[in-house]
Parts: sequence; structure tokens; C-alpha cells
Amino acid sequence: MNTKMNDIILAHNETKAKNLLERLDKKKPLFSCVIGVTETAKIQGISAAGANPEITDYTPPADVELLHLGKCKCIPGVPVTPDGIPTPALITMSALNLADIPTLVVSAGLRIKPQIPYVEIGGCPGKDIRTGKALDNAEEVVSRAKILGENLSKTADYLVVGESIPGGTTTALSVLLAMGVDAKGKVSSSMPMNPHELKIKTAQEALKAANIKEGQFCDDPVAAVSAVGDPMQPAAAGLIVGAAKNVPVIMAGGTQMAAVLAVVAGLNKDILDNVAIGTTRWIVNDKTSDIRGLVSKIADVPVLAADLDFSQSQFDGLKAYEAGVVKEGVGCGGAATAAILKSKGEITKNTLLEQIEHNYKQLVG
Amino acid sequence: MNTKMNDIILAHNETKAKNLLERLDKKKPLFSCVIGVTETAKIQGISAAGANPEITDYTPPADVELLHLGKCKCIPGVPVTPDGIPTPALITMSALNLADIPTLVVSAGLRIKPQIPYVEIGGCPGKDIRTGKALDNAEEVVSRAKILGENLSKTADYLVVGESIPGGTTTALSVLLAMGVDAKGKVSSSMPMNPHELKIKTAQEALKAANIKEGQFCDDPVAAVSAVGDPMQPAAAGLIVGAAKNVPVIMAGGTQMAAVLAVVAGLNKDILDNVAIGTTRWIVNDKTSDIRGLVSKIADVPVLAADLDFSQSQFDGLKAYEAGVVKEGVGCGGAATAAILKSKGEITKNTLLEQIEHNYKQLVG
Repeated sequence: MNTKMNDIILAHNETKAKNLLERLDKKKPLFSCVIGVTETAKIQGISAAGANPEITDYTPPADVELLHLGKCKCIPGVPVTPDGIPTPALITMSALNLADIPTLVVSAGLRIKPQIPYVEIGGCPGKDIRTGKALDNAEEVVSRAKILGENLSKTADYLVVGESIPGGTTTALSVLLAMGVDAKGKVSSSMPMNPHELKIKTAQEALKAANIKEGQFCDDPVAAVSAVGDPMQPAAAGLIVGAAKNVPVIMAGGTQMAAVLAVVAGLNKDILDNVAIGTTRWIVNDKTSDIRGLVSKIADVPVLAADLDFSQSQFDGLKAYEAGVVKEGVGCGGAATAAILKSKGEITKNTLLEQIEHNYKQLVG
Repeated sequence: MNTKMNDIILAHNETKAKNLLERLDKKKPLFSCVIGVTETAKIQGISAAGANPEITDYTPPADVELLHLGKCKCIPGVPVTPDGIPTPALITMSALNLADIPTLVVSAGLRIKPQIPYVEIGGCPGKDIRTGKALDNAEEVVSRAKILGENLSKTADYLVVGESIPGGTTTALSVLLAMGVDAKGKVSSSMPMNPHELKIKTAQEALKAANIKEGQFCDDPVAAVSAVGDPMQPAAAGLIVGAAKNVPVIMAGGTQMAAVLAVVAGLNKDILDNVAIGTTRWIVNDKTSDIRGLVSKIADVPVLAADLDFSQSQFDGLKAYEAGVVKEGVGCGGAATAAILKSKGEITKNTLLEQIEHNYKQLVG
């Protein structure tokens, strides 16, 4: 492997990870961001992807407006945590711009529509998983997303699929439990103090309301997401399955993508050789979650991580990432990885930080 | 030029046409279909893109369902003219499938949503142009479509941009008049007896209602389409302008694309070297319209035409194309051209006809 790629960490399944990086050399990626909302995010204490729970409906559309316009239109400023720490879309935007990577947003189910082009695949906002009836039409969404993935795979050399959905690690937990992956205490959080107990309680209530036992849907991913999932999961999984028939796909996200991986593996095991998870150093080093443990229970795929490091940043809002705030989202780790790869290492963690700080100054102040 | 490309007619501006074909050799296209509806199509006698005027709202979504699914979902069967002649989407579908060309549908403004993935860019159905206030937000649509075009141009080697909008030649006439191109008697029709008088009367009523004189908006394409256009025009024009900054674009359509060309030229003259019109033999040979005359009044771009010939077809529903029914639509000429090019001439007018007949038999009976 090119030694210039030092800023990509081979975090899990190292040989496969290395092979994948070689396959992606000189290739042109397409970045796709699957966005959605779920009422689950409005449970107090679940999500920090917004200044308060009610505003989480605006976070995904604002994130993708930032990617395409360099500013948000549906909200003033940019999405922030309750403590004012800015969205990881800042990282994604910086990486995509630096490496000139094309982007296509996919709506999986939204209350607020972004003021940019986005692909509609017929999804709806997710209901609170504690109803046990989270999604109405997951099967149709999977099928339309597959068509999209197949078509995109004929134009791009590989796909990077990110996500933005507040509350997504809780719905990841419940789907993983429904599919028989014991993810309790293993999903990550956008908060430094990971509220595992609240997530577990919520997921268990969801399974109870759906009248299912842990593992009951181990072979039925559509039933699992329909009962206790979120709209991003079937959309991203369909997109990945459709694309990975033809080209490699980097699933860009943290432990939310472990749940998507379980859905992907349930839909079509044959494409797993074309799949990797791409995330951040903050996720693979996170002591409150365990992405390697989760992935190894699901499928033998590699995990890459962009070696992003904000410890020397001049801005407290970025330094906070080192304290475990945010960590991942909007495919920032996968986008940074793709930027490093596409530039053959000319883009480094340092040039990325420079660009991120530049954008931070403009947008956050 | 490859002599195997005999089935592509250099219909206008031959040297530029030849150069373009050389530039597209060994390149990978992306086919995009911009669909929309306008109340203008419901004026009795204007459009044959549907069994009756009221059903024209279903024609564009049904057309693109055919492209992605091989069948329609929002209507039984396939769109037909009042005489039962099937949609040109049959040709497009056959060409795209044969050459394995990826496809992305763009909604410019619909009443009925297709049950396949499509890009939403914020457009609305067009009002009857006789209101003089056809479109509400053309500027925003142009701007979002540009973003889409820019992004797609970074993943595909070239774009083929088709359209499906019933009533589109009448709105083409009115926009061309508003922009100072005398198109009276020059736009084509999906009917053998081109109802020029009705179209001219409708367009003149539209200009009067908008309180504008012919040529008044020669430098303001957004004002022209806002007053007397249809939603496909700003969407396709934005997409083309965004993409043609970086890659060649085949504007796939008949005289409707002449109106889009006028809008494109008004938005950005600098990208015209990357633009060509791609249509059918039926359009370039049509005695009731004049695509060469229209194009030469607007911009010095080439016209290519797929040499489709259904005279030997075993099906009356296809033979009817030779009698001047349908002629063009859903980018069928540009899609056929791209299929011939991508296959380096292995796909010919004959293999196309075989595939079209095969699909005709399955879908029309």
C-alpha cells in the first residue's frame, strides 16, 4: 500500500482492509448521504444531534444543505449539539470539497425537505420504536434503493454511503437485538457520557411492543427494521446491496452502520466482499462503544478509520471532538478516507484540519 | 469516425457532430430523464401523449417506471396515444438495457409520483400557459438542477438528458417566441397532422396574458419560462448548464430541446461547445417541423439523430412511427445514439428494433 495513506487506520480485518485500499487506488468515488428522521430521537436524552430534541427534524436536511451549498438554508447557522458543538457535516463538506468528490443525497423519510437536489425513494419519517411499528413500507424502500444503487454503481468506481439520522444509535441497538446481535453497551453516542441504560431500556420497550424476542428476526432484516428500526436503515441497506453487486462500497458511519451491515448481510450475503465500514478514529478508539466487536459478530468485513485528530485545533468547538463529543456522522470518516485515497495521500489529516478550521471560522465563527 | 457508427445521422453542423462523436468514443454515459406536467397539455387537441388529455398527468411517471422496472406501476399497460400507439419510452428502455446505461430520473414538477427513485429539485406542475404565469419558482429549480448537473458530471463521462412532458412542443413554441426565435410552424408534434394553428393561438394567448411581446425576454430565459414555459425547461436547462461545464451533454429530444437550448444559451453561452441535440430520424425528416432551422437560429450546436426505422416492423403499433405518430420523447433518440456509441456500433438500428419488438410483444401484446 502507498505509504502516503498513513492517515487511514486499518482498524479491523487488516488484510482485507489493505486489499480494499489497493482496489480503490486511482478510482473515482461517489459520495451518497442517506438522511431520515425518527420520532425516537425526541425521547429526552437520546440524541445530541441538535440543540434540543424538537429541532432534530432539521438536522439531516441542514447537514446536506451544508454539503451542497456550503451553508444551511432550513436553519440559521449549522446544526449543533446542546453544548454548541458543530455538526460533523463540516468535516464531510471539507473532505468532499478538497477532493472534488461528487455527492448525491438520498431522502429516506423526512419532515423537513432540504433545499438542494435529493433522491426520493418513497420513505416516510420513522415512528417512535416504542410503538413496535417503526416503519410502514421498508420493503418498498429497500427495493427502490436497490434500483438506485445498481444505477449509481454503473457510473461511479465505488460508492461511499453516509447517513444523518438523529437517534440512530438507539434504533441501531434495537435492530441489532431483533436480529440476534447482542449490542447492549456497544453502540456509540454523540455524547461523551453514552446513555447506554436509556438506550437499552428504549430498545427493550420497542421489542416488547413489537412482541418479539431478541434474535427473532435474525433472518428477516425487513421485519426487524419495520418493527424497531429507522428509515435510514432500509434505504442505506438497499443502496449498498444494489451497488455492491458491481463495485466496492464504503459504509460511512459508526455503530449505526453495524446495524445497516446486519440488514445488508440479511438481504444478500454474496455482496459482502465488496463492503467495508469507513469511520473515524474517534469511533474506533471510543471506550464507550465497540464497533470491532459488533462488526465481527455480523460479517467478516474490514473497518477503516480516518485518523482525524483535532487535539491541536485552535477552536474549542473542534477540540471537543477529542473529548468524545459527536465522533461521527454525515459519513465524515468515510468521506475523509475517500478524500485521502482519491488524492493519493496529498490530502492528509493536516490539510483536512486546515480546511475544516477554515470552514469552521466561516460558519461557526 | 468509426464506420460502424453508420446508424447515427449527422443531421446538422456535421463537422462539430463528427468531433463530438469522436470525443464520446469509449466514454461512459449517464442517461437522465427530466419529467414534468403542465396544465397546457389538457387543452383539447394539443397533446397525444396519453389516451386522453386528463390522463397526461400519468404519462411521465409511467414512462420512467418503464425505464427502471420494465413495466409501469401507476397505470396498467404502457402510455399510448389516443390511437393506441405506445410511448417512445419503449425505445429508450430497449436502448438503455441493451447498452447497460445507468439512468437517473429527475422530477421537474409532477402530480403523480413515479414508484421508482427520482431526484426532487423543488419544481411544481406547470400552470396553463394562457395564464401568463406558468411557473412559480423557475429560478430556484434552475439553481438546484445546476447543482445536480455539476455533481453528475463528476461521475459520468457524459450526460444524455431526455424529457417526458405532454404538451411540451406548445410550451416550446411559446418560450421560443418570448425569447425572439420565430418558431411558428416549426415545432413538431406527436400527431401526424401537426396542429400548428392551435399551438400558435395558444402561445399567442399566453404571451398576451403575460403582457409580453415576441422577443421581449431574449436575454431573460428564466422570465420566459416563468411566464409561458413548462417545468421541464428550467430543470433540464439547469442540469445541462451544470453538467456541460465539465463534460459533453446530449440534449435528447426533438423541438422541445430547441426551447431548452434557447434557455441554456441564455443562462450560459460559454458551455455551448459541450452541447449537442440528439434526436430521431423521424424528427429530422419531419416535414411538419424544422429542428435544423430552429437550432441554427439559437446556437451553433450539432444535431445527431438515431437512424431508427420501423418500416419493416411486424407490429402496426411500431410501423405507425413511420407515419409520423409520436416521433420522439423520453430521450429515445439520444438514448439510442448513446447505446450505439457505447457499444462501438455493435448495437445497430436492427438490434435495437429487435429489442424494441421483443419489449413491444411483452408489454403491448
